[in-house]
Amino acid sequence: MPNKRIGIIGTGIMGSDHARILTAGIADAELAGVQDASRERAEALATETGARVFADPQSLISDPDIDAVMVCSPDPTHHPLALAAIAAGKPVMVEKPLASTLAEAKDVIAAEMKHGRRLVQVGFMRRFDPGYCAMKAELTGGRLGQALFLHCIHRNAIGPDYLTSDLVISSSAGHEFDIARFLLDDEIVAASVISPRASRLAPNRQPQFIVLESASGIVVDIEVFVDCGYGYDVRGELVCEKGTISLNPSPATTLRHAGHDGYQTPPDWRPRFAEAYRIQMQAWVDALSGRPNDGASAWDGYRAIQVTEACLKASRTGTRIAVPDDVRPGFYA
Amino acid sequence: MPNKRIGIIGTGIMGSDHARILTAGIADAELAGVQDASRERAEALATETGARVFADPQSLISDPDIDAVMVCSPDPTHHPLALAAIAAGKPVMVEKPLASTLAEAKDVIAAEMKHGRRLVQVGFMRRFDPGYCAMKAELTGGRLGQALFLHCIHRNAIGPDYLTSDLVISSSAGHEFDIARFLLDDEIVAASVISPRASRLAPNRQPQFIVLESASGIVVDIEVFVDCGYGYDVRGELVCEKGTISLNPSPATTLRHAGHDGYQTPPDWRPRFAEAYRIQMQAWVDALSGRPNDGASAWDGYRAIQVTEACLKASRTGTRIAVPDDVRPGFYA
Amino acid sequence: MPNKRIGIIGTGIMGSDHARILTAGIADAELAGVQDASRERAEALATETGARVFADPQSLISDPDIDAVMVCSPDPTHHPLALAAIAAGKPVMVEKPLASTLAEAKDVIAAEMKHGRRLVQVGFMRRFDPGYCAMKAELTGGRLGQALFLHCIHRNAIGPDYLTSDLVISSSAGHEFDIARFLLDDEIVAASVISPRASRLAPNRQPQFIVLESASGIVVDIEVFVDCGYGYDVRGELVCEKGTISLNPSPATTLRHAGHDGYQTPPDWRPRFAEAYRIQMQAWVDALSGRPNDGASAWDGYRAIQVTEACLKASRTGTRIAVPDDVRPGFYA
Amino acid sequence: MPNKRIGIIGTGIMGSDHARILTAGIADAELAGVQDASRERAEALATETGARVFADPQSLISDPDIDAVMVCSPDPTHHPLALAAIAAGKPVMVEKPLASTLAEAKDVIAAEMKHGRRLVQVGFMRRFDPGYCAMKAELTGGRLGQALFLHCIHRNAIGPDYLTSDLVISSSAGHEFDIARFLLDDEIVAASVISPRASRLAPNRQPQFIVLESASGIVVDIEVFVDCGYGYDVRGELVCEKGTISLNPSPATTLRHAGHDGYQTPPDWRPRFAEAYRIQMQAWVDALSGRPNDGASAWDGYRAIQVTEACLKASRTGTRIAVPDDVRPGFYA
Repeated sequence: MPNKRIGIIGTGIMGSDHARILTAGIADAELAGVQDASRERAEALATETGARVFADPQSLISDPDIDAVMVCSPDPTHHPLALAAIAAGKPVMVEKPLASTLAEAKDVIAAEMKHGRRLVQVGFMRRFDPGYCAMKAELTGGRLGQALFLHCIHRNAIGPDYLTSDLVISSSAGHEFDIARFLLDDEIVAASVISPRASRLAPNRQPQFIVLESASGIVVDIEVFVDCGYGYDVRGELVCEKGTISLNPSPATTLRHAGHDGYQTPPDWRPRFAEAYRIQMQAWVDALSGRPNDGASAWDGYRAIQVTEACLKASRTGTRIAVPDDVRPGFYA
Repeated sequence: MPNKRIGIIGTGIMGSDHARILTAGIADAELAGVQDASRERAEALATETGARVFADPQSLISDPDIDAVMVCSPDPTHHPLALAAIAAGKPVMVEKPLASTLAEAKDVIAAEMKHGRRLVQVGFMRRFDPGYCAMKAELTGGRLGQALFLHCIHRNAIGPDYLTSDLVISSSAGHEFDIARFLLDDEIVAASVISPRASRLAPNRQPQFIVLESASGIVVDIEVFVDCGYGYDVRGELVCEKGTISLNPSPATTLRHAGHDGYQTPPDWRPRFAEAYRIQMQAWVDALSGRPNDGASAWDGYRAIQVTEACLKASRTGTRIAVPDDVRPGFYA
Repeated sequence: MPNKRIGIIGTGIMGSDHARILTAGIADAELAGVQDASRERAEALATETGARVFADPQSLISDPDIDAVMVCSPDPTHHPLALAAIAAGKPVMVEKPLASTLAEAKDVIAAEMKHGRRLVQVGFMRRFDPGYCAMKAELTGGRLGQALFLHCIHRNAIGPDYLTSDLVISSSAGHEFDIARFLLDDEIVAASVISPRASRLAPNRQPQFIVLESASGIVVDIEVFVDCGYGYDVRGELVCEKGTISLNPSPATTLRHAGHDGYQTPPDWRPRFAEAYRIQMQAWVDALSGRPNDGASAWDGYRAIQVTEACLKASRTGTRIAVPDDVRPGFYA
Repeated sequence: MPNKRIGIIGTGIMGSDHARILTAGIADAELAGVQDASRERAEALATETGARVFADPQSLISDPDIDAVMVCSPDPTHHPLALAAIAAGKPVMVEKPLASTLAEAKDVIAAEMKHGRRLVQVGFMRRFDPGYCAMKAELTGGRLGQALFLHCIHRNAIGPDYLTSDLVISSSAGHEFDIARFLLDDEIVAASVISPRASRLAPNRQPQFIVLESASGIVVDIEVFVDCGYGYDVRGELVCEKGTISLNPSPATTLRHAGHDGYQTPPDWRPRFAEAYRIQMQAWVDALSGRPNDGASAWDGYRAIQVTEACLKASRTGTRIAVPDDVRPGFYA
């Protein structure tokens, strides 16, 4: 069986990382094409990986030598490129978020349903992280009983200057919105946001504290603090009736040095989720040959945006906001 | 300098524990008297410790051979016995809560202020726990910058049958209300309560999730789950501008046995806070000779009840409730 | 560039695992052939993976559709099959040990040197484990200064019945002999063995305690206990002049349940070293296209057997035994 | 019952620490006298604690207002002062080592036996450390089966200039010799010493690696490295037939700051063993009133010196040295 030929649109940090993961250790796939708004950047990656450079997204999507597409270009392009891939009948992995608005996300869902076959996966890679997978398996296994709480912490060492309090919710917290739905196999029905003061080191935005309620009565709380200073840190504890299971981000080694016993925190998300990205990529490639996986669908991408919208409104109003209770189409069952 | 002669009223679990701590390893003090509604129970403890048995609380409080009093009897007795000790001019350690209502707590404050000298300490022993003390010292030291979040977890293995959702807030969470004020050196100004479903193993009460806001803009969230099954577990993480400091309840040893690597969780709060109780007792005894300590005052006991009241109202109404902004009397500065 | 076509000889536990790793997530390679003394077992794996079944090792090695060979058959076959692969001019990954005797290992070295190009890699997969790699990188980086001690622990939950004290040294400890040489970039010059009593649960063999000395004066101590009961556990601490770095085998999650806080130990070596096996395989495949890696050479396999021989003699005599000081041929520089 | 009146001879680091522990939180005892070769130093401590200053050791020992004596003066004084206390019929806590030579230790034993009542305790405080106590309780409890290995690590941040390789064995490792005997309830029968090169930061002494064998066949290995740089660190793992139990020196809090997650190592042994020192003192005071404890006897002090002598000889000769098999007198049963 010949390798699947993958084309990557957008060769910034995420796109380049995906390209390296794909070429370094994914079975049954090869990087066949790259495209970027900066042709120079695309060519540099092509030189490194042996891929062909495309002049524009559409030509990559349409090319008969491209079997499937990864969309890693800026957020506003996700929606049109997802539609273009669907129009070409090609499987597409869209980096999160699926779209910039609920209406756009609905567009993608409608187009995919009209096409009649699932083509879209959203890059919520945490679904493939061994830690989250172990949490889900433990919950499903039943030994701990039903879930009651999910405590989430999402910290970055330092956020980019343009980040606002709203963007902390809409960009950073999106991963938690999806993973909570995935882990709990439940829908979010309400959101509250209670934020502390800003750090004096990042006075233009506040850390955020989000409390979600699920349909079956689970409370999900999320600290999002993109300026914690000490490193990238994602934590989670799932509290069930008979016990809890927590993410344990211990690295491969412990260091005792200079008055300290412990380990160095990763500078950003890439070392922390390297394994998740690799497994997600292999699972997506395997799905191209028909093997199902737990990746996020366009529907999941849409729901994450719904929760985001509720949180933004809760933050603005200081009240608890209900999340609309959309019925999942059978197409996404 | 002769030993301080301590009298303990109430010889149930807490009173007996205090008696043993006092006799086993506290300098400059001795257990001189005990009293309990069950004379038999008091006599058993007296036999074990060599203390004298008193027939009723007042006779213990009034006795010239008693220098100071510990009130460990049921909650409704705290208020009258604190008043009696103040009337007798004797220092008194009152187990938490200080009183059953705000009005009663105000009574105690008024009586103590009228007496003109501080006599009352409330048994919020966590203020003497080495972990919380290290957190406070780190915050005060300034290396981590200002506080932004305080995440608290309070779990018991199994709650008594009579416990209701309201009692989970008013009894169990009181420790967190006090320690948050103590650690942050700040007052609570608002409370929200968002609770998950009940555990099917304790269907008569829900676990509670409380979100407090402090005057300076710190968010304090508290999970209280008295039926977690696996053991007693108190956690805390103080998140500051440049880093975090967490309680680390690791015991003295780690066990690898039967497919498991880790440690056994304590069955209840006593092993977890044994050191805190001992240090609190020594500090209180030292205070009898004039050495100041960080123990909770009657004012602190009153403020804890104010937060409790706000949480109960928030729980009933499903809304954010403001905590009254009382001015601390100079007497309690 | 077409995929490398790999043939696996020996489809027991190790061979089957390698086959699954190869087909599930290795770039630029495919499983082209399998062979086993049990044709039935080979056919089962072939059905699962799509590989072709060969009737005997030589026909697999000689087949023009096989580019490289993995030898996973019983230990006594390693030597003749390595020679056969060299004779065919094909790269070969030999599971450890390289050979059953020093003389056999010398044979392989001589054949490979005569062939004139390096073809043999020995399957000491720990060299690719992220933990050991981090230890080596830290030592090389120099922040901790020179190495002084390397403490090693190697535990299995339960050993097979046929295992003797000698086999504990020659089979289980071999991994430590190689990883010590690799980590320290140093040769072992002496061995002592001091063994405790046998466990009453495995009375036919003693746990072993081995102390090695390196040419530059580093002490390496190794506990090998194949009947520890609680699970598979490999530990290591590299002690340097200014600090230490330790393996930290913490899994992805922590469980609090049933009176216990910690994690479940793996039942055997495969979950613990899954990542090492995968990375080793990809590195070996990449080496087929000329990319160098840190895998163990035939020379390393030979040295491991030399240390083994010294340990066996030290165990028999109860004395410190010198390891011969062979000069590494330039061919293996 | 009046407080026991304690006199402390030697008011250097250890003596001063003991004095503060005694006055700060020990029941039923008071610091009644202090003495030091430096009268100034003794007076400073007396001013701080309210104790009386004695001009010389004998006058303190003989004084009728002194009930019991702690010997914290330099090592060569331990033997004569222990004898003086025995002659005065007063209980004496001698800091380790009991004596400088085996002959001196025998003297003390003979004098104590002649006196006819046990008066001497040696300050091996680890016997009262909660971690070691939990290890001993677990072993005695039987769940893990019999002991097979005891792995010990003893590290100081930086050793004093005068320390030689021999002193590393005779001074630092003494704690391990005693705790091994105590934990295992077994005698050491042989010693081997295999030392790595010196650290370039402390070129005048080598770290030491000691391997002891017990009468029942347990292997005890001890790393002693007094110049590890990063802090004071004592580790231990007791390996039994069905599992292991390890010291877990995690402090009360964990810090995430400046790229690091972990905790600060203590600069010296005092924070690490503060609890052990306090418990040892209370147990010794309680023993003055007749309550037995697990403290080290003169016999234990003698045996520790025997093991020390064997290790020194093993180090000099590079061979395994048998420890004499003395029969414990019934007096010390």
